[in-house]
Amino acid sequence: MTELRERVKVIAFDVFGTVVDWHGSVKREVEAMNLGVDGGEFALAWRAGYQPAMAEVMQRGEWVILDVLHRRILDRVLADFGLDDMDEATRHHLNRAWHRLDPWPDSVEGLTRLKSKFMISSLSNGNIGLLADMAKHAGLPWDVILCAETFNKYKPHPDTYRGVARTFEVDPGEVMLAAAHHGDLEAARNCGLETAYIERPWEYGRDEAKNTAPWDANSLHNTSIIHLAEQLGC
Amino acid sequence: MTELRERVKVIAFDVFGTVVDWHGSVKREVEAMNLGVDGGEFALAWRAGYQPAMAEVMQRGEWVILDVLHRRILDRVLADFGLDDMDEATRHHLNRAWHRLDPWPDSVEGLTRLKSKFMISSLSNGNIGLLADMAKHAGLPWDVILCAETFNKYKPHPDTYRGVARTFEVDPGEVMLAAAHHGDLEAARNCGLETAYIERPWEYGRDEAKNTAPWDANSLHNTSIIHLAEQLGC
Repeated sequence: MTELRERVKVIAFDVFGTVVDWHGSVKREVEAMNLGVDGGEFALAWRAGYQPAMAEVMQRGEWVILDVLHRRILDRVLADFGLDDMDEATRHHLNRAWHRLDPWPDSVEGLTRLKSKFMISSLSNGNIGLLADMAKHAGLPWDVILCAETFNKYKPHPDTYRGVARTFEVDPGEVMLAAAHHGDLEAARNCGLETAYIERPWEYGRDEAKNTAPWDANSLHNTSIIHLAEQLGC
Repeated sequence: MTELRERVKVIAFDVFGTVVDWHGSVKREVEAMNLGVDGGEFALAWRAGYQPAMAEVMQRGEWVILDVLHRRILDRVLADFGLDDMDEATRHHLNRAWHRLDPWPDSVEGLTRLKSKFMISSLSNGNIGLLADMAKHAGLPWDVILCAETFNKYKPHPDTYRGVARTFEVDPGEVMLAAAHHGDLEAARNCGLETAYIERPWEYGRDEAKNTAPWDANSLHNTSIIHLAEQLGC
């Protein structure tokens, strides 16, 4: 552990689900609109379109920021939920709910503590404007916002993980990715990064806890970002 | 003024000279190395290579980050100052002096006050890693780091100024550039941005004050970043 603490210079964080509670936040916004739909189900349907939309962008070799993908998916989900009559201004406002996601209770304190010793960065598939608005809304104290838009590639493309190391002119082993998703961490590990898993059992809502069992391959397993800070001596 | 305060959403800052004192900081680092040269003259010679190097990059259509340009210029300046025998590790360390520039005395307070009401961003020709290291060193509380590397263009290319507006999905008139250089502000104005001049009479050293006379075309003229915050009601 001491060796790891000394070697790592930069901690990059996945954001959706790891730092902020997208399900609870989108659910609340949808329910506050009194649309007559289940906010939690709406949030899940919207998020379900996320991976396929990014995969399609990467396959086509086009570049489209996440705000645009979120909007394309939203228009489909609204139709599926029988809400086709929603006007343009309301759709636009709702689409920006992803700019207003709330942090998990430990995120701000954990990040602030880690910032005292490490360079802390986002590494999200969100776009720069989305992440800057979110940081201001949620009080996330990033040293720097790095994301898919910085590298014109979506995770898990290696350019994103390696891009963090290149940005700071350090070796991949001096960068740690913290995320609530084993697949994201595995892709980072394949690029030589250290990896820290963060348990977020309620990422998909309070009805059913997500499996947060440890994977041995990760450098660290943490119950929260505060726990990660403690493990790294902050 | 009230109209301006209400309209502007994002304030983007030029950094070298406007927020940080590159001349004084580089001078101090060079003098601390006891190289037997005048630190102030060395800093001026290094900086003199900056505009031509960027212009060459833009003309060739290649993309090279500022750390690399700084290093190319440094190698030439070392030769000119008879310091050709400097070893690689020392050159590398010296080149990163630009990551360790100190803020002007009003910068941190001014930015912190502006951050309470506006989205505050860098818009520098520095690269992302340089600006993130500098922000951590100097305590600059950016909401987001935007720069030439974000847009793969050096100022005064219009893509940089328009890129700030596009990042936040706002009109160019909702963005204000703050800078100590009338040319930078003029280029921003030509893209529809509001402009705030910041007086930095000692940008090129204490020997001779820079002409900081107002240009009527700027939206605001300020003696410091704190003064800008006051003018904008922060």
